[in-house]
Amino acid sequence: MSDGVAIVSGGLDSVTMLYHLVKHNYRPHVLSFNYAQRHAKELYFANQAAERFGLPWQAIDLIDVGNEMRDSNSSLINPDVDVPEGHYASDTMKATVVPNRNMIMASIAAGICIGEGGHYVAAAPHNGDAAIYPDCRPVFWHLLEDVIRRANEGFIQQDWKFELPFIHWTKTDIACEAKRLDVPVHLTWSCYKGGKVHCGRCGTCVERLEALHDAKVDDKTEYEDNSFWKSQVKV
Amino acid sequence: MSDGVAIVSGGLDSVTMLYHLVKHNYRPHVLSFNYAQRHAKELYFANQAAERFGLPWQAIDLIDVGNEMRDSNSSLINPDVDVPEGHYASDTMKATVVPNRNMIMASIAAGICIGEGGHYVAAAPHNGDAAIYPDCRPVFWHLLEDVIRRANEGFIQQDWKFELPFIHWTKTDIACEAKRLDVPVHLTWSCYKGGKVHCGRCGTCVERLEALHDAKVDDKTEYEDNSFWKSQVKV
Repeated sequence: MSDGVAIVSGGLDSVTMLYHLVKHNYRPHVLSFNYAQRHAKELYFANQAAERFGLPWQAIDLIDVGNEMRDSNSSLINPDVDVPEGHYASDTMKATVVPNRNMIMASIAAGICIGEGGHYVAAAPHNGDAAIYPDCRPVFWHLLEDVIRRANEGFIQQDWKFELPFIHWTKTDIACEAKRLDVPVHLTWSCYKGGKVHCGRCGTCVERLEALHDAKVDDKTEYEDNSFWKSQVKV
Repeated sequence: MSDGVAIVSGGLDSVTMLYHLVKHNYRPHVLSFNYAQRHAKELYFANQAAERFGLPWQAIDLIDVGNEMRDSNSSLINPDVDVPEGHYASDTMKATVVPNRNMIMASIAAGICIGEGGHYVAAAPHNGDAAIYPDCRPVFWHLLEDVIRRANEGFIQQDWKFELPFIHWTKTDIACEAKRLDVPVHLTWSCYKGGKVHCGRCGTCVERLEALHDAKVDDKTEYEDNSFWKSQVKV
């Protein structure tokens, strides 16, 4: 029986969060979202991670939502827009913003959690995302928690809350936690391009490589280009 | 070109809202949601209404979300739970609550609206719903608007907001507006049972019949039982 819901994309952050949650005796129902993202293959890695712990997993089909958002200039859902390369924090990375994405996923996860009588929704936003993505800032989650509690008064568990273990952490902090918890990082998917192997050049690949290097993680992931990241200015 | 998004279920309230919006020169992109609700036939009436005005319409597939919520005791999505009869305000009507429904729909509508550069999301909660459904209260929408603006800072139109023309109205006020705007009320679908014709006995049918009667609307809708509502205590 699940005690809450965990939003897991299949990337380094959310898979490490799942290990972290299990280590702390949580038994979440694991949810992933398919919004027709270019890198939908990440879902496979989320599924695998949940299975490793014998946790229930579902992919929620939001393909219609992704399709309706095609006109936004997000490279993650519009195949005509190139995925920008280089460090995450540079201005071009705004092309990876999917409008209202975190609120959509959090709202659905909360609805499913409340229906199941669960006590929390766990997600893995971190401090490094907050600069570019306003919906990764602590204040956003804090306010959203309040709205969800109000919206479901009488139906939600009294102690319901967001579990955001990495909200104040850097990406490197997460990589260190991945190392401590023996997360098989090559069985996580970060690359926005969604190719055969990680490209090593897009924002999330650069960030991943930098963090895993700093945390001295033995990374068995295959990258098309595993040195480009070193030329990028660290943020 | 749409100037915003309108959430239209196909019921009396939201279809009347669409007439109201068009009358006030809005040109919304009309969205409906299919969450495997028992009365999914309402979507057909939403589509028809949008077509009457030449407005773009889409049904967003949230069937996975509805399915994951089956375990909640909502009669709207769990076929094993009977749709309660009698007046809407009675306690049993809580069995029609779908966890976090309004926030899920509003979040998706906002995401699509922001991606399209739209200026508003319109929805039709009204004062009569507020007693049972906490996510129909003005304060909920007020707080959610703030969270959405924050979550999408830099990407959302400066003047973006919720348009909630009926938020302080009663159901009868809406029926009066339907009369003023010549809304073909028999081409709207309210009944939660989703049968061949409106049942006339479920909470939303009782409320609909009462309001249309009070507003002296010439109602061509077919009801299986068109007198039961009179025996119900008016709230």
